[in-house]
Amino acid sequence: MAASRKIVILTDGHYSAHAAKTAICVVRYRPEEVVAVLDRTLAGKTCGEVMKVGGEIPFVGSLAEAPEADTLLIGIAPPGGAIPDAWRPIVLEAIARKLTVVSGLHDFLCDDPEFSRAAAEHDVRLVDLRDNRERDVASGRPYDERCLRLHTVANDCSCGKMVTTVEVAEGLARAGVDAAFVATGQTGIMIAGDGCPIDRVIADFVSGAAEKLVLANQHHEVMVVEGQGSLYHPRYSGVTFGLLHGLKPDGLIYCYEMGRSAIDDLKHVVLPPHRHAIEFYERCAAVMHPCRVIGVAVNGQHFSDDEVAAEVDRVGRELGLPACDVIRQGPARLVEAVIALKNQKQKQTTLPT
Amino acid sequence: MAASRKIVILTDGHYSAHAAKTAICVVRYRPEEVVAVLDRTLAGKTCGEVMKVGGEIPFVGSLAEAPEADTLLIGIAPPGGAIPDAWRPIVLEAIARKLTVVSGLHDFLCDDPEFSRAAAEHDVRLVDLRDNRERDVASGRPYDERCLRLHTVANDCSCGKMVTTVEVAEGLARAGVDAAFVATGQTGIMIAGDGCPIDRVIADFVSGAAEKLVLANQHHEVMVVEGQGSLYHPRYSGVTFGLLHGLKPDGLIYCYEMGRSAIDDLKHVVLPPHRHAIEFYERCAAVMHPCRVIGVAVNGQHFSDDEVAAEVDRVGRELGLPACDVIRQGPARLVEAVIALKNQKQKQTTLPT
Repeated sequence: MAASRKIVILTDGHYSAHAAKTAICVVRYRPEEVVAVLDRTLAGKTCGEVMKVGGEIPFVGSLAEAPEADTLLIGIAPPGGAIPDAWRPIVLEAIARKLTVVSGLHDFLCDDPEFSRAAAEHDVRLVDLRDNRERDVASGRPYDERCLRLHTVANDCSCGKMVTTVEVAEGLARAGVDAAFVATGQTGIMIAGDGCPIDRVIADFVSGAAEKLVLANQHHEVMVVEGQGSLYHPRYSGVTFGLLHGLKPDGLIYCYEMGRSAIDDLKHVVLPPHRHAIEFYERCAAVMHPCRVIGVAVNGQHFSDDEVAAEVDRVGRELGLPACDVIRQGPARLVEAVIALKNQKQKQTTLPT
Repeated sequence: MAASRKIVILTDGHYSAHAAKTAICVVRYRPEEVVAVLDRTLAGKTCGEVMKVGGEIPFVGSLAEAPEADTLLIGIAPPGGAIPDAWRPIVLEAIARKLTVVSGLHDFLCDDPEFSRAAAEHDVRLVDLRDNRERDVASGRPYDERCLRLHTVANDCSCGKMVTTVEVAEGLARAGVDAAFVATGQTGIMIAGDGCPIDRVIADFVSGAAEKLVLANQHHEVMVVEGQGSLYHPRYSGVTFGLLHGLKPDGLIYCYEMGRSAIDDLKHVVLPPHRHAIEFYERCAAVMHPCRVIGVAVNGQHFSDDEVAAEVDRVGRELGLPACDVIRQGPARLVEAVIALKNQKQKQTTLPT
């Protein structure tokens, strides 16, 4: 995506830290592109106040309050995937104002007769980030082992895989490593400007799509590939498994949210002990390629700094792995672990056989 | 599908026991509906001679030799999914003759401008068995535990999961059990008349589609659900995992083909020992629901009766499980194992808690 976008993010009436994770992540990682967040229930506040990121970026009550905007971004990701009815007039107004409308929902803007008619009339582009034409099975051919493939996984959805992926990739870059953040979901794609909406790919082609991501990025020293879903999620575990097998990662970073003991939207599904989950991820990955978890990303968003620090210490000792909350403490410990694994792989790859 | 179909199966120039598995399965399980197989390289022979099933059903060299046909069925399932160029005139002739054309390929007949134009012109129906509108995530709600959920799995693709599923379901019916064969692939759907083409479902909705299959069939005493792919297949393992988690089976039947030591179309991917594969399937399934492998289906198609009998004995002893080649020996041992599991589950379900 062009760096010159001037984005209004739409969360109108649906803002919550959970529902608006797309909005919050775009504000966190692309603040220079966001001119406002449109939410009548929060108009007058700033992103800094509401999201703890984004500083003075304002919440506004109408598109007219952001006249410089050239893009409207749908900022929530509901399980159903449909645009709320109350948003339809706002989307139509954006189209009439000639804004590009960008959505990561399963229900495509382009498939909506009213939106596509209006877009044609006003010569406006509707961008469905989940739309894809993936139609290739994985070739299964070996990857270039000079590149370290790293992947974030988790015990559940929405516990920080994307944020961890970005933070580790940026941390590696700061440490002088040529590292790529590889996006596999709509929010990551909004931030990175490319990637593959893996959960929207036809099931037969998931590993093939993952393979293409590797082939497109293996000229880097390290690729850090965003995870999707969880092997423990009754809805999305097949996406997670197919992505894992297509990527054939060398190392995994295990993410979890402090205080969560069951699947977020299916409370009767209890989460396993972290040690079991880590062992299971390694086992599943190793079916295709030897792999181990090299670090733990703790998401402590609902706890104090002290509580997070204590949890990070405890879990790091318990699992014998470097751990951190990448937002509170920065990703340094994970970055170190990645560099150590990179050096180890380099040694193995260049050893005489 | 209506029982009155008069099908010509198209394999023209592409017949092999492997490539034409769709054709062979339809001839095996719906011989009363098949009037001919169109393959110029085999014209004059019978299905009995070529396929060892289907008796006197003839191979013919042209559609004109099967004037009573009302349906043309694409009888191969190539990895790429495209209709061979040499078949286009045959498909167009079938349309001109007012035959319904049925395909299970990933490339839809309806998306082909030439075919869809011709179909509109002649008022003919094009049926794409893989086409689906699955757009629901799994609800995750509990199933009716009075129904036993059985599922076939394997160490690789194309080693007899569908055949085993049909044979076990039919064997259960012969034993007086109300059992449903539940199809999850295009060939199974051709045979059963319904089902879900699970590998063509958008990845996010695979478990949801599997859940719908269970909900639609749990009024039976037993459902036997066809497996797809393999947890060990670099291309399709995500499909297998998502289906497994959506179904939450009580029992698995493990299928393999004698003599195969690597993934069929990726020879560098070596297959694991059966004991490991069985343990891994049980482990992966148990993430959602306790489950064990209750029997082994040996596909001995390339071996003699004696060799198959010896393999079945050996593997049954090695794994401590009932085993059989369902085609050579019938499914009786597996049917017995299913009934034993059904009785055991019934006892557990009706126990006072």
